[in-house]
Amino acid sequence: MKLGEKEEKILAVKRGIAEILLPAEFDEKLRGNVKLKIKAGFDPTAPDIHLGHTVLLNKLRQLQELGHEVLFIIGDFTAAIGDPTGRNITRPPLARETILTNAETYKRQAFKVLLPQKTTVLFNSSWLQQLAPEDLIKLASTYTVARMLEREDFSKRFRENRPIAIHEFLYPLLQGYDSVEVKADMEWGGTDQKFNLLMGRELQKHFGQLPQTVVMTPLLEGLDGKQKMSKSLGNYIGIDEPAKEIFGKLMSISDALMWRYFELLSFRSTAEIDHWKEEVLSNRINPRDLKVKLALEIVARFHGETLANEAHHDFITRFQRKILTDVEIIHLEIDQSSIGIASLLRMAGMVQSTSEAIRLIKQGAVKVNGQKLVSYDRQISENTENIYQVGKRKVAKLQVTRKQPCPKSP
Amino acid sequence: MKLGEKEEKILAVKRGIAEILLPAEFDEKLRGNVKLKIKAGFDPTAPDIHLGHTVLLNKLRQLQELGHEVLFIIGDFTAAIGDPTGRNITRPPLARETILTNAETYKRQAFKVLLPQKTTVLFNSSWLQQLAPEDLIKLASTYTVARMLEREDFSKRFRENRPIAIHEFLYPLLQGYDSVEVKADMEWGGTDQKFNLLMGRELQKHFGQLPQTVVMTPLLEGLDGKQKMSKSLGNYIGIDEPAKEIFGKLMSISDALMWRYFELLSFRSTAEIDHWKEEVLSNRINPRDLKVKLALEIVARFHGETLANEAHHDFITRFQRKILTDVEIIHLEIDQSSIGIASLLRMAGMVQSTSEAIRLIKQGAVKVNGQKLVSYDRQISENTENIYQVGKRKVAKLQVTRKQPCPKSP
Repeated sequence: MKLGEKEEKILAVKRGIAEILLPAEFDEKLRGNVKLKIKAGFDPTAPDIHLGHTVLLNKLRQLQELGHEVLFIIGDFTAAIGDPTGRNITRPPLARETILTNAETYKRQAFKVLLPQKTTVLFNSSWLQQLAPEDLIKLASTYTVARMLEREDFSKRFRENRPIAIHEFLYPLLQGYDSVEVKADMEWGGTDQKFNLLMGRELQKHFGQLPQTVVMTPLLEGLDGKQKMSKSLGNYIGIDEPAKEIFGKLMSISDALMWRYFELLSFRSTAEIDHWKEEVLSNRINPRDLKVKLALEIVARFHGETLANEAHHDFITRFQRKILTDVEIIHLEIDQSSIGIASLLRMAGMVQSTSEAIRLIKQGAVKVNGQKLVSYDRQISENTENIYQVGKRKVAKLQVTRKQPCPKSP
Repeated sequence: MKLGEKEEKILAVKRGIAEILLPAEFDEKLRGNVKLKIKAGFDPTAPDIHLGHTVLLNKLRQLQELGHEVLFIIGDFTAAIGDPTGRNITRPPLARETILTNAETYKRQAFKVLLPQKTTVLFNSSWLQQLAPEDLIKLASTYTVARMLEREDFSKRFRENRPIAIHEFLYPLLQGYDSVEVKADMEWGGTDQKFNLLMGRELQKHFGQLPQTVVMTPLLEGLDGKQKMSKSLGNYIGIDEPAKEIFGKLMSISDALMWRYFELLSFRSTAEIDHWKEEVLSNRINPRDLKVKLALEIVARFHGETLANEAHHDFITRFQRKILTDVEIIHLEIDQSSIGIASLLRMAGMVQSTSEAIRLIKQGAVKVNGQKLVSYDRQISENTENIYQVGKRKVAKLQVTRKQPCPKSP
């Protein structure tokens, strides 16, 4: 690797990072010629990886391309115990088989980003299970109650008089001990893991090791562009979803979010992305064309180029060309001579409820014959036929007629 | 055992107890016909037993005489770990050999009170050492941080921002787990152990066992009658001290403390003691004679009757008869024509310092020729000879003369 090339790759690694604990230490380690051990921990309780997770995986991949080794640590030890108090329903103990299946799924998905030959997969039970009781006690002696209570969720619960069971103080120590066991040079994780990442660093110092550099990646915003991507919020793109689904979802994001996704999900160079930003500013390029580039790259990463191109073609056919002649036609019969737009969309099944329709109209997400609808109290008359578009992906031609009155009984 | 006799023995067991957690449960267990497992824990860090420790041992002995089994649990597990933070100098880790030697000493001394055939000596390392990491985590999950912080020393340190290491939260749980392991029906300990004793009870409930009844003995006052007996305060009587020493120390206590010691250290019946109280009140008996009875009983317990009688005889010879003619005579030469009483006592080695002398005089503990000294600024002239008594046991005739001036050099 040429010197310039290496510096460029280091810059790429740093793109989009939320926080580096000691930037000088970080630069020194990456500029050196030592193959670094890069630790990253994964929880085998939920096996499905979404794009949010891949922000970290992308960084690890870039580090692998700089020659470093990724220690992919599966936290099976605590997963097998769960929350013995039974208070925390998100932490039921998992059976060994479930853990292994989840870990396998996780690994298979992660290797769509990571280079297997530069990844060492480790289960932390293999060393934590071996700890003698006195080892655990000594580990617990390295940290004080007061400092543990500084962790945000602990301090909040303590203030609010909600119970914290004592074993919960052991979990951060155990995952921190993983860093000692594997002699990590660096640990990467999300910003929500800061306390744990620093714990690893402190424990290494305590055990006489050179402490790991701590690097945090941001939590990726979901499709709504606001909240962090998460399965429970429904604003996610799973990397195992079908190619067309991923493609369509990526085409639906806002322009602002597109740039964020370019920064954190794309391997395009920063120079290229900056160039596109200028092009968009001066109206020489349509953001939609850049979304296509982003979608093609991401889909190809998880499904290969052929499926990516197919998804692209499918998308063009259905939406972008706006060949609305072959759009689905729905006949709707109404009782009066006209009907409110919100009720109409609900009747057609294009929204779940009239209130959803109203919200979408307010957001400017509903078009009639290609024109954005500005008022949600618009009435649609009988015997009309219009093309309605809800969001970027739902489209239909609605034919509205009046229901024939029943023949009067004699 | 006759019914009346049993009830009487139960009453004797209850004498002097500081607190019974559930008195009804306690009575029910003791009145039943089941051989109970009575747990008591001992710390093998300091091997020397003093009379303060025997308050508990006496109760255990009485329980044995009711047919119950004493589980004498030596806390060697935590002793071997000590305080890994190194902050607590009173808790250095002990080598296995030291622990075993201490335990042996402790056992040998304890068996002067306990019946060996009704005592099972157990080392808690034998089960705690076997705990798997997940067992320890589950144990830690049974208790909350907030409740652990209710323990007095923890809450005090937490309030004062003094560090509490996390492993300190594990120690009470571990000793509580001992109760689960041995399936204790009852646990006895000092009032300072309340938190720990209750922990055992709670953990037994958690593990589906019938919870142990918790009984607390008071902390015995030391020779000063005020602070609790302890080696570090110097107000103790070690049960391995020579017979004459124990006898003399017991003869030196106040009358009030004598009654306390009768209650907690003597196996004389309550009826007999109450009778003596009346006799003393009506001046039909001298408390000193009762102190002799107490001293004879206690010394005989630890050294046998022959040595007890010898100690008694020795005591009479030296002090009680006050045959002060054969008292030790000390010649002291002073520089001036007189000397302060405090300096004189220090010169004679009857006190360690003049300030000690002043303190003792203020307390009324110094006599001159049998008369209590009321003022500490008294001057003693040259060419006098008086009998000085410091406390109850130090006595000497001091002959004060003036130092001859040195012959002038020519």
